[in-house]
Amino acid sequence: MEYLQGDERLDYLLAEDLRIIQSPSVFSFSLDAVLLARFASIPLKRGKIVDLCTGNGAIPLFLSARTSAPIIGVELQERLVDMATRSVHYNELESQITIQQGDVRGIAKVLGSEKYDMVTCNPPYFPVEAAPDKKLSEHQAIARHEIHLSLEEAVANASSLLKQGGKAAFVHRPGRLIELIDAMRRNRLEPKRIQLVYPKEGREANTVLIEGIKDGKPDLKVLPPVTVYQENGSYTPEIEEILYGNKK
Amino acid sequence: MEYLQGDERLDYLLAEDLRIIQSPSVFSFSLDAVLLARFASIPLKRGKIVDLCTGNGAIPLFLSARTSAPIIGVELQERLVDMATRSVHYNELESQITIQQGDVRGIAKVLGSEKYDMVTCNPPYFPVEAAPDKKLSEHQAIARHEIHLSLEEAVANASSLLKQGGKAAFVHRPGRLIELIDAMRRNRLEPKRIQLVYPKEGREANTVLIEGIKDGKPDLKVLPPVTVYQENGSYTPEIEEILYGNKK
Repeated sequence: MEYLQGDERLDYLLAEDLRIIQSPSVFSFSLDAVLLARFASIPLKRGKIVDLCTGNGAIPLFLSARTSAPIIGVELQERLVDMATRSVHYNELESQITIQQGDVRGIAKVLGSEKYDMVTCNPPYFPVEAAPDKKLSEHQAIARHEIHLSLEEAVANASSLLKQGGKAAFVHRPGRLIELIDAMRRNRLEPKRIQLVYPKEGREANTVLIEGIKDGKPDLKVLPPVTVYQENGSYTPEIEEILYGNKK
Repeated sequence: MEYLQGDERLDYLLAEDLRIIQSPSVFSFSLDAVLLARFASIPLKRGKIVDLCTGNGAIPLFLSARTSAPIIGVELQERLVDMATRSVHYNELESQITIQQGDVRGIAKVLGSEKYDMVTCNPPYFPVEAAPDKKLSEHQAIARHEIHLSLEEAVANASSLLKQGGKAAFVHRPGRLIELIDAMRRNRLEPKRIQLVYPKEGREANTVLIEGIKDGKPDLKVLPPVTVYQENGSYTPEIEEILYGNKK
C-alpha cells in the first residue's frame, strides 16, 4: 500500500473514525496526545489552531473531529512531517489540516505573530542531561528530550502565536509543572484550567494537562481527575470512552 | 462546666481521642484544617512546628496525635487564643502545645527567624474586596477574609520561621493556587507536594493542599486525589477514616 513505508502501520483512531500512520521505530502517538486533544478548549468553528511538536499529526487529527477550524501542525523532523502529511491525505483532511515542517523556535516569524486562537503542544518531556535511552532512535530521542526545544522555548513560542485572549494547552509530567506554570506566567499565559491524570486509583499523578489564556486574569479551575487503569490493568470506562467512543 | 463560655461546645476530634472547644458564632474548625494536619510532612520526634492562623487550635491538636515535637499555634484574635488555650488544657497537652497570641506579620521577630522545621497555615481565603457576608461575626470575618493577613504575608512569614530544608504546608482554594505557588517561590519555598480535594466524583476541586521545602529543588509530586462526599451525600470511606478513625 503506497501510504506506508518500512515498519509503518496504519492504525485506527477508533473514537474518531480516522486512521493514522505510526511506526514503532520512529514515532507512535501516546495517550497524552489523546488527553491533550480532548482537554483543550477548541473553537468549534471560527478561529485558527496551531499544534506545536505535532509528531505524526495525532493531535490535529483528533481535533479535526471536534472543530471545523483550520489546524496547522508544526513538526521539526522531516520523517515525521512526511508521516503526518500522508495521514492527513489518507483521511482526506487536506482542506482543514496543514502539516508544516519547521523549528518551533521562531515559528511566529513563519506563521505570523498574535494571529492564532489556540495552540496545543505536547513537548519533549525530558531534559537533555537525562541520558537518552540507548534503545531510542534519533527520531524518538528528539521527540522525548529537550534537544531542539526547551520547555521555556515551547511556552514562549506558543504565546508568540496567540492573539490576546487566545489559549495555549500543554501536557507534561507533574515534576515539571511548577517550571511550566512559571514559564507560562512569564510569557503572558495565565493558567486557567488544570487536570491531573493518575495511572491508577491511589497512585500519584503521572501526567498534567494545563491551559492558559494570554493576558487572562488569575483564577484557576482544577477539573475532575482522570484515572487511566483499573486495578486489574484494563482501561477505566472513562478512558475506553475516550479511545473507542461508543464503538465498543 | 468551667471550660466553656457562652455558646461554646466541647466537640470530639473523634479520630484522635481529643476534644476541642468550638462556637458556632465565633469559630469552628473546618474539614480543611483536618486535611492539612493529615497532609503535612510532620517530624515524628525531633523538630519544632508552628501553626499560623491557628484559630481554635484544631491543627496543633490534630498534629499532637502524630508527633511528640513541640507545637506553637499563633492566633491574632484574643477570643480564639482563649478558646485554643482552654482546649490545650482540657486535653492536658500544655507540655507539647503553646498557643501564642500575636500577628503573623513579623512573627519571626517574636518566635525567632529560621528556627523551625515545619510551618502549617490555613490562612484566610478571601480578599478583603469580596464583601464579607453580613451574617459573619467580626471573629469569623477576620478568619475568612484577608483583613489582617494577605496571602503573600502568610507565605513570607511562614518562610521566615523556617530553617533551610524546613517545610511549609498550606491549604487554600484552587482559584488562588497560582498566586500561592508564585508567592511560595518568591519566598524560597519550592513546591514539592500537592493534593487536590474534590467535593464529589466528577466535580472540580474546591480545595488544594500544597507543601514546599525552603530552598528545595524543583520536583513536584501530585498525591492521589481526595474525594469528600459520595453521590448520596454521605462521606466517602476515606474521609470517614480521617474523621472517625477506626472508631466506627
